[in-house]
Amino acid sequence: MGSVKGIRDKVAIIGMGCTKFGERWDASKNDLIFEATKEAVEDAKIEPKDIEAAWGGTWVSGFDGRCLADPLKLQYIPVTRVENACASGSDAFRNACYAVAAGAYDICLAVGFEKLKDSGYSGLPDQQSLPSNRYPDRTAPGMFALMATTYFSVYGLSPEEGKRMIGTVSVKSHHNGTLNPKAHLRREVTIEQVMNAPIVAWPLGLFDCCGVSDGAAAAIVVPADRAKEFRPDPVYVKALQISVCPSEGELRADYDFTQVRATVEAGKAAYTEAGITKPREEISMAELHDCFSITEAVTCEDLEFSPRGKVKADIESGFFNLDGGLPVQPDGGLKSFGHPIGASGLRMLYEVYLQCQGRAAERQIKNPKLGLTHNLGGIPVSNTVSVLIIGL
Amino acid sequence: MGSVKGIRDKVAIIGMGCTKFGERWDASKNDLIFEATKEAVEDAKIEPKDIEAAWGGTWVSGFDGRCLADPLKLQYIPVTRVENACASGSDAFRNACYAVAAGAYDICLAVGFEKLKDSGYSGLPDQQSLPSNRYPDRTAPGMFALMATTYFSVYGLSPEEGKRMIGTVSVKSHHNGTLNPKAHLRREVTIEQVMNAPIVAWPLGLFDCCGVSDGAAAAIVVPADRAKEFRPDPVYVKALQISVCPSEGELRADYDFTQVRATVEAGKAAYTEAGITKPREEISMAELHDCFSITEAVTCEDLEFSPRGKVKADIESGFFNLDGGLPVQPDGGLKSFGHPIGASGLRMLYEVYLQCQGRAAERQIKNPKLGLTHNLGGIPVSNTVSVLIIGL
Repeated sequence: MGSVKGIRDKVAIIGMGCTKFGERWDASKNDLIFEATKEAVEDAKIEPKDIEAAWGGTWVSGFDGRCLADPLKLQYIPVTRVENACASGSDAFRNACYAVAAGAYDICLAVGFEKLKDSGYSGLPDQQSLPSNRYPDRTAPGMFALMATTYFSVYGLSPEEGKRMIGTVSVKSHHNGTLNPKAHLRREVTIEQVMNAPIVAWPLGLFDCCGVSDGAAAAIVVPADRAKEFRPDPVYVKALQISVCPSEGELRADYDFTQVRATVEAGKAAYTEAGITKPREEISMAELHDCFSITEAVTCEDLEFSPRGKVKADIESGFFNLDGGLPVQPDGGLKSFGHPIGASGLRMLYEVYLQCQGRAAERQIKNPKLGLTHNLGGIPVSNTVSVLIIGL
Repeated sequence: MGSVKGIRDKVAIIGMGCTKFGERWDASKNDLIFEATKEAVEDAKIEPKDIEAAWGGTWVSGFDGRCLADPLKLQYIPVTRVENACASGSDAFRNACYAVAAGAYDICLAVGFEKLKDSGYSGLPDQQSLPSNRYPDRTAPGMFALMATTYFSVYGLSPEEGKRMIGTVSVKSHHNGTLNPKAHLRREVTIEQVMNAPIVAWPLGLFDCCGVSDGAAAAIVVPADRAKEFRPDPVYVKALQISVCPSEGELRADYDFTQVRATVEAGKAAYTEAGITKPREEISMAELHDCFSITEAVTCEDLEFSPRGKVKADIESGFFNLDGGLPVQPDGGLKSFGHPIGASGLRMLYEVYLQCQGRAAERQIKNPKLGLTHNLGGIPVSNTVSVLIIGL
């Protein structure tokens, strides 16, 4: 990364909203955008006409600024579409925050959304839908399975030990999802069920993969020094970092699939921007991009929550559980919400926002101060990654 | 529009680059991005590694941040894809400027690009490629032709008078293009050729329509107070405005197709941000979105260059010519460059930048102070519009 100056504590969130995620046959993408934004506007106690500019993050569910202007009937204000793979929602939020920090506007909206269930997208794209012909037979589960098998090998885990480690990640996230009325999948699973489920790409079984889903989430941001005019408990933006590698990325002989360098770099930059030196102690909770259970495990090392090669002990001791030292996916994660691509980044931020305000009901963690969100768009060798931190 | 605070004079351009536009069978989209950025980086006298964050504007020629990171080998810095129809390049620039004005970064890159000639895109989309089913038989020429015929009718021009008025626009722009080595079409045309050319959608003939083209353009921006560390003649950002209407837009009984409200609103906001009260006198030059000759004529009224209904006199007196009171399309416009969608906004800005620095060679205008760019994405009843102003 280059220099990190950043905009720590210059911008605050005064309202957020999130739809129920799932097979939303009842709703169009416009309905989802409206539903999330309505909650955010009401939460901020503003009127829709107070919104001065907006950013929409989506992968394939809309074109240009009209994709947000349409459902919200925004009239002649600036509306921008941002697309950055699985970090689209996070990056829409980041650009809205910069506009506020720049002094260009006082009240901005960021929305992330995606409608996939009726699009034909299965999560296992056929060759024609891939933007690159570099990896003709690749699938997402296949590429992340390489991460799992090489991680097991490099750190000396037997297949049984490795599978149990990642399975424990899924059991935890499924449990958290049962406590969340907005999650898509809300059933407990046992480690035995996870271990014995049909294999998608070994060692990743059905319960190691997140689902395909529909959803939207929204945030209203204002200058930090105005935030308490709107509500007594605003949540402040501490770090907004993106790290992108070229498509060749780490595709080279010495890449061992046990880490994602863009996550490492975005994490370091975010900690610098937020003034964090001991992430394991200072971060109160995290929503990580658990497209697969192995991704969550490796990301916990990439973000310095656990020492390199040692995440297994923290997973198995419950360190990442709701009542652990650093709860990961308190809302249930992609595992329980599925992954409507443009929506996930802002859905994660919604959970941090609620937790910081003490509004997370049954899944409320103790005394949260700072929460982190992480999105990984792409595959282990090539990706675009966001790490955002917000807090009190 | 809501309130206009803006970031006037907080950010400066220290380097720009632009490819030759045209049927670039010799170049991939990555080659075009590289070519434009190389010129910009050399012009700014920086190294590629000095770039701290980047924004890429494209409609259909790339996905996520990797679409820029790939060809430029950007390593683990933030790279965002912005898409806002024909204003994609302008909006990428706008977001880069906000990040600089926010204090998040010191040296940012914005690139607009599009590779259309080998994509199958003809400018006359078939129904399947349209994002909406609202106007099943519409084409861009057909919708802008309605603007021409109703403009003629409302302001009492005979078909002959109207066609001559818009034809004169094209003659002027073709002339300017002959002076520009980077333009796609570089031939003088006479008013007789324009009047007698094959009709695409009456009254718009072959020479009233811009072409389809390939190209890219790039800008390097820094905080205004650091600009003179890089070069003695930086060009400052005065206004960055976008105005978006919902898809229903002006589709109602009282809309008469003689103006584009989003242009009017974005123009007013930009003048407020830049502190301009008499655009006709204060704006030195403009690059307008002349997708069709009638669009340029109506935009001159929407932006208050000419009184409502009176643009004909200014067109025919040469007010918009290179040596006129307010040169429009000094570089030849979309008419001469074609319209590689994501590239056009930054191509326009490149011309203003060169003119402000006195580097426009044969087409240099006298003493430019402020230049305006305008992009219109969509059709007269529904669109996303940008108006940017830069200057000394």
